[in-house]
Amino acid sequence: MKQGLKITIIGAGSSYTPELIEGLINRKHELPIRELWLVDIDEGKEKVNIIGDLTRRMLTKNGLDDVEVHISLDRIPALQGADFVCSQFRAGCLESRIRDERISLKYGMIGQETNGLGGFANACRTIPIALEICKEMEEYCPEAWLLNFTNPSGMVTEAILKYTNVKAVGLCNVPVIMQKGVSQMLGADEKDIVLQVAGLNHLIWARQILHEGKDKLQEVVEKILSGNDPLVPQNIPPFEWPPELLRNMGMIPCAYLRYYYTSQDIMEQELEEAKGEGTRGEVVKAMEKRLFDIYRNPELSDKPKELEKRGGQYYSEAACELMSSIFNDKRTIMHVNTRNNGAIAGLPEDCAVEMSCMITKSGPLPLNVAPFPTDTLRLIQLMKEFESLTVEAAVTGNRNAAHKALILNPLVTTGTILEQALEETIQENLDFMPQFR
Amino acid sequence: MKQGLKITIIGAGSSYTPELIEGLINRKHELPIRELWLVDIDEGKEKVNIIGDLTRRMLTKNGLDDVEVHISLDRIPALQGADFVCSQFRAGCLESRIRDERISLKYGMIGQETNGLGGFANACRTIPIALEICKEMEEYCPEAWLLNFTNPSGMVTEAILKYTNVKAVGLCNVPVIMQKGVSQMLGADEKDIVLQVAGLNHLIWARQILHEGKDKLQEVVEKILSGNDPLVPQNIPPFEWPPELLRNMGMIPCAYLRYYYTSQDIMEQELEEAKGEGTRGEVVKAMEKRLFDIYRNPELSDKPKELEKRGGQYYSEAACELMSSIFNDKRTIMHVNTRNNGAIAGLPEDCAVEMSCMITKSGPLPLNVAPFPTDTLRLIQLMKEFESLTVEAAVTGNRNAAHKALILNPLVTTGTILEQALEETIQENLDFMPQFR
Amino acid sequence: MKQGLKITIIGAGSSYTPELIEGLINRKHELPIRELWLVDIDEGKEKVNIIGDLTRRMLTKNGLDDVEVHISLDRIPALQGADFVCSQFRAGCLESRIRDERISLKYGMIGQETNGLGGFANACRTIPIALEICKEMEEYCPEAWLLNFTNPSGMVTEAILKYTNVKAVGLCNVPVIMQKGVSQMLGADEKDIVLQVAGLNHLIWARQILHEGKDKLQEVVEKILSGNDPLVPQNIPPFEWPPELLRNMGMIPCAYLRYYYTSQDIMEQELEEAKGEGTRGEVVKAMEKRLFDIYRNPELSDKPKELEKRGGQYYSEAACELMSSIFNDKRTIMHVNTRNNGAIAGLPEDCAVEMSCMITKSGPLPLNVAPFPTDTLRLIQLMKEFESLTVEAAVTGNRNAAHKALILNPLVTTGTILEQALEETIQENLDFMPQFR
Amino acid sequence: MKQGLKITIIGAGSSYTPELIEGLINRKHELPIRELWLVDIDEGKEKVNIIGDLTRRMLTKNGLDDVEVHISLDRIPALQGADFVCSQFRAGCLESRIRDERISLKYGMIGQETNGLGGFANACRTIPIALEICKEMEEYCPEAWLLNFTNPSGMVTEAILKYTNVKAVGLCNVPVIMQKGVSQMLGADEKDIVLQVAGLNHLIWARQILHEGKDKLQEVVEKILSGNDPLVPQNIPPFEWPPELLRNMGMIPCAYLRYYYTSQDIMEQELEEAKGEGTRGEVVKAMEKRLFDIYRNPELSDKPKELEKRGGQYYSEAACELMSSIFNDKRTIMHVNTRNNGAIAGLPEDCAVEMSCMITKSGPLPLNVAPFPTDTLRLIQLMKEFESLTVEAAVTGNRNAAHKALILNPLVTTGTILEQALEETIQENLDFMPQFR
Repeated sequence: MKQGLKITIIGAGSSYTPELIEGLINRKHELPIRELWLVDIDEGKEKVNIIGDLTRRMLTKNGLDDVEVHISLDRIPALQGADFVCSQFRAGCLESRIRDERISLKYGMIGQETNGLGGFANACRTIPIALEICKEMEEYCPEAWLLNFTNPSGMVTEAILKYTNVKAVGLCNVPVIMQKGVSQMLGADEKDIVLQVAGLNHLIWARQILHEGKDKLQEVVEKILSGNDPLVPQNIPPFEWPPELLRNMGMIPCAYLRYYYTSQDIMEQELEEAKGEGTRGEVVKAMEKRLFDIYRNPELSDKPKELEKRGGQYYSEAACELMSSIFNDKRTIMHVNTRNNGAIAGLPEDCAVEMSCMITKSGPLPLNVAPFPTDTLRLIQLMKEFESLTVEAAVTGNRNAAHKALILNPLVTTGTILEQALEETIQENLDFMPQFR
Repeated sequence: MKQGLKITIIGAGSSYTPELIEGLINRKHELPIRELWLVDIDEGKEKVNIIGDLTRRMLTKNGLDDVEVHISLDRIPALQGADFVCSQFRAGCLESRIRDERISLKYGMIGQETNGLGGFANACRTIPIALEICKEMEEYCPEAWLLNFTNPSGMVTEAILKYTNVKAVGLCNVPVIMQKGVSQMLGADEKDIVLQVAGLNHLIWARQILHEGKDKLQEVVEKILSGNDPLVPQNIPPFEWPPELLRNMGMIPCAYLRYYYTSQDIMEQELEEAKGEGTRGEVVKAMEKRLFDIYRNPELSDKPKELEKRGGQYYSEAACELMSSIFNDKRTIMHVNTRNNGAIAGLPEDCAVEMSCMITKSGPLPLNVAPFPTDTLRLIQLMKEFESLTVEAAVTGNRNAAHKALILNPLVTTGTILEQALEETIQENLDFMPQFR
Repeated sequence: MKQGLKITIIGAGSSYTPELIEGLINRKHELPIRELWLVDIDEGKEKVNIIGDLTRRMLTKNGLDDVEVHISLDRIPALQGADFVCSQFRAGCLESRIRDERISLKYGMIGQETNGLGGFANACRTIPIALEICKEMEEYCPEAWLLNFTNPSGMVTEAILKYTNVKAVGLCNVPVIMQKGVSQMLGADEKDIVLQVAGLNHLIWARQILHEGKDKLQEVVEKILSGNDPLVPQNIPPFEWPPELLRNMGMIPCAYLRYYYTSQDIMEQELEEAKGEGTRGEVVKAMEKRLFDIYRNPELSDKPKELEKRGGQYYSEAACELMSSIFNDKRTIMHVNTRNNGAIAGLPEDCAVEMSCMITKSGPLPLNVAPFPTDTLRLIQLMKEFESLTVEAAVTGNRNAAHKALILNPLVTTGTILEQALEETIQENLDFMPQFR
Repeated sequence: MKQGLKITIIGAGSSYTPELIEGLINRKHELPIRELWLVDIDEGKEKVNIIGDLTRRMLTKNGLDDVEVHISLDRIPALQGADFVCSQFRAGCLESRIRDERISLKYGMIGQETNGLGGFANACRTIPIALEICKEMEEYCPEAWLLNFTNPSGMVTEAILKYTNVKAVGLCNVPVIMQKGVSQMLGADEKDIVLQVAGLNHLIWARQILHEGKDKLQEVVEKILSGNDPLVPQNIPPFEWPPELLRNMGMIPCAYLRYYYTSQDIMEQELEEAKGEGTRGEVVKAMEKRLFDIYRNPELSDKPKELEKRGGQYYSEAACELMSSIFNDKRTIMHVNTRNNGAIAGLPEDCAVEMSCMITKSGPLPLNVAPFPTDTLRLIQLMKEFESLTVEAAVTGNRNAAHKALILNPLVTTGTILEQALEETIQENLDFMPQFR
């Protein structure tokens, strides 16, 4: 058989895929690819074909004609003997995301794909499919690494770690953006910075920023407060942290923490957007349409500039770097979702956490995390309990677990309203949540 | 010197005092009183005089003429050599309570005297005065027991335990009502029931209900769900727990937990009341006025029936029983606020918790509490962190501690709105919160 | 059926039984007995008959002729419908105890029936039988309380709590002796003292000694150091604590702790005794012979004075008081072995600990224990791990668990010598340790 | 000023120093040295001069004439502006080590320089001097890194981390030997192996051995059991682990753990050696004499082969590699003593632990350690408590802390014998232990 890796992309019809292809091309000298399998479901056939054609053009342009590109609506042949599996599907497509946002807003709650009621709904739709894929992996490629960037990435990774034997790592672009932003703010080479993050997916803090033997954290805090904040992803509107809060925290919260620290401001913004250009899901849907129009162009053989506005920048960068780090035993520091195993004191051993790890050929070895200050720990513990109960509900369909999960979530309003919102969520998603039938 | 105890009541101009007097009279054979000191501040002079006259009439009617009744606007002589000090003052009077409620509602948050933003404000007004009283006790009656039922009772008790050497116990009527209600539901004698409660003040759960060697907890749950719920205090409107939530909890939440489990329902109720008969503080104010008109009647020598509607029933029952239990080394089980000391796993040793204790001549010995289920523990830990940060803010005037406390509280909305609400609270209360100047 | 309780004594042929009978007689007004079942095995037939005759004479003398006394070599009818089961058998009789002592000494280790290698051997002989009895109780008297004072009481109780559903309480005379000794030293009525003990069986400390609202612990320490130490059981030779150690401990160790704090002194004493009057087991064997000669006397209708030298004084006192406290819902404080359930921080929830409890009709409710100082906690944790591994070895016959248990025990010497001593222990006891075959 | 580093060696008169010099020479292309300061005390003048001469010859031979070599009996100029300080002094010289060994053996205990009573004595002699050096470093070279390999390395490092602000790392050759031995057993390149160790100094376990994406731990266990054990340092006589113990442990104990797992075997060996060629200290003393005779040879300009028998092989290798890793931000994995900070669950945050870290320009970042199995954890916790109490005794001279420390140590016999041994240790060392006066 030919040398090289077999890489399989689940949900390859995503508009993000060209970034992933670009990342693979950029690493052609360190990451030899034999086969590339682009997998999607029937509904995604058109999109994955467009992506497949673009992929072939991109590879050809970069002298990688010998990479076999397969498009498949059947997962089994795609998984068979794979070395790396990238999971980036969206259960129920953007329509479901938009529905989640609209239901949340209707009941006066923040609507978002990984937080609050929307995050819960997304987890309940996604986890059963993710576990199905993992069962197949256990059979057809038990040695493969699964790189999950399907959202909600933390909860999906936790479900996989708890219920399957797949070697899985969860990825997110938030810490990548922090890493790049911090380096930029300090005018330093990214590889000279040691950034240590810890927490849960979309709920992390930078705990240490080391450069040239010095801790630069407070220096970065002051830069952020002086108006220079490149740590915020494109899909999050600019905002400001309460200065004293940030200054006294001893760590730097990721952009998603504004959902918890300044929730009313987000709520107002979302309501305004929903009345205006539409919810984030609706904006993305329109953007996707434009992107595919571009991708269709048979002249195009590069990742188009427009993709960067899509919000998920660096996801693919992280995925490609992770594959290369594992394959080449690089021992670089990356920030991933993995089993806690005692790393964050005060959380269960078997839960998923997002933290800085040294990446080896055997996967991520987490760096130790200094104990969190109690007030922050309490928020993390609360949210992890929400996540674990949500995973339980997603797997078992236990409504009481669902209710208990949502009661704990600070972005969810409790009371009769919650019982109604939960019921509507389940009923509207019943095709994707058979466990609740 | 004459035999008997010296009992001092701080904030004796309260409309509750006649209940306390009645409790002492009922225990005249086991709790011999030599002196009764009724203390209040200048603004309360008229009220405390009315109460003093009523007290004397009540004692006389019950053959207790030999008890010396002193009315004092100066705490020092009242504290000098006291055996028991009952603290039931309200810093800033009902006007402050009403202001708290109105500020909270204005910013779209629940307004209440022990929870949320109102609880925070109340703590910041009250704790400095409570600590001042304790400093005096350390000097003038170092052996005395302080029975605190000044609200927010849990946070006030925590501040006293952390910052003074006074032997203090915090009291609340909520577990007393649970004890009586459970006995009534089971048709059992109160003393044959072992009810074990645990948690924080206004955030407790019944963990065990034992009778005749059997655990009756699920039986009580079913009775509550079938519409018979005598566990709710008079000042909380009737409501229903989500049945499956209650049935699967393995414990029974106190009525105040509906603020967390069904917060939107409470919010709507409060908004409606505020537009109608007024906030709870306003209702109480009107009620107080009527009560004092009754107390003024020189013919009255009994606690009037009307007082029972006031909402604080059994506070005084608990206080008198506690004094008697300590004095007589009764070894009864009572539910009080005391130092955690490892009793509730997962909380700091030095924080205050509310739990069932065996009362001895040396004070309360807490019963061990079985570890809480994680989801409940997370809520308790979160709320304790809110409380401890609030105590810190109340003592030091540190605005960042205040902000961090409020961000964690699920009854508080975060964002610009919170910064405004906090600032307004501080400015409006500046006379009572000099620490924030 | 006639009114009254059915009490069953397993191992009734013990020389201790007359003390138990005396304890029941002393409580005849509060503990009404219908049937008394004296159970032993074939080898104990003669002894149990002697005890049975003496029991009948004692009951008759005290006007309790209506109590039915049954002697049975079959446990089933004895357990059927029992209210209380007292377990005081000795697996392998005194011969096994003596063998344990001799093997330990031969290998240069302390030989004792509840500590070190001897305690391990005793547990491995006893636990399988204790579990067999409990299986029978689950079937024939599921509502009965089991009072275990079969040694090693802590490990036997832990095995029962972990592997059966029997309502079991483990008893020991050590804390009873402490309670009585402390009262005597303080010249106080026993019931006015609150003694709180905590730890593991034969490894407890007095944590609080309260009297008249004062903590008297240091006062008792000084009395002990001045030469007055009534806390030591009869079967432990007099000795002195290192004064500064005791003075700075903030608690009072039970007499068995000298095995850990002053082990070489004990070792020398044991070696001397073994060469002289014999090991403790041998001394007891001679004593037992003398006692049964006395019991045989048809004129005897009282517990003879000589029994008090036997070493187990107050075991039966504790057992009778516990039965009465449960039956009468007395809510007294007793010191028993029960499930930890969070009471001692730093130990597993499901292990057995010995601690002060309030005794109710539903059994013991442990008092909370203030966190132990770290150095003491480390010893407790180590010994509990020894105990839990021993229980595992006793149940499963896993030699590796046995080896791991013994390596941790500070009274056991590790190395080739241990492998030999363990093998000899198993081979010599094979009839009673079929699990290791 | 000239470019390059200033490296200071405290206790440079040690016979190990040539290995350190060799290590620096081997790294001349990555670790540019400007000045090398060899420091010792008056009593070591002759030795440090011999070493100084040899050092100059070695540097010259390797083309490093431009490195300034200073010999100093005064620490201040040597520390002034240093970049790295290597601490390898021995308080009280080998005479004290020999005395410790002899006192221990006299009282029937294992005599060793880092374990048991000898380790305690060594810590009490060494820590006061180590802290004095650190106070000087705080003043004269606050930015310098201290590499401590003065024994007992773990306790000395803990004292420094607790009582000073110096950036300190403790080193030991035990994990280095494990790393090299494992690589050799697996026939793999050392840099391709990920070995993760954790525990306390001289009390570590290999927790993971990863190679090519596989965990090779059990494979290494079987190799060790089949008689191939290169993990044992030269100064520890060959021995065998109990096979089932090792096979079921899930980790690999370091050679020093045989002091705990097979203590009697060591005791016998030590007694035999003491009667024969002498204690380890005596053997080393004779060896040192021979080494210095060799070092004196003006023809010698290489580290002599004989040094490798000395027992401390790879200490200096580790020290040089650590300096280079810090200086060059190498991000390699090394095994060092550093602040726990939550890395090993169940130990205090502020204690020193020995574990695998990623070495950066900002020092070591510990890798997370999976929770230890309970039985192993209990031993670690016990020994850490011994260490922390010993550090306390060494700093304060509190005899009660000393006694409490020693009572916990399983290599120490308790009782009157311990009180005598402790007193003799203090009296014989009084010049080096003024804190106990």
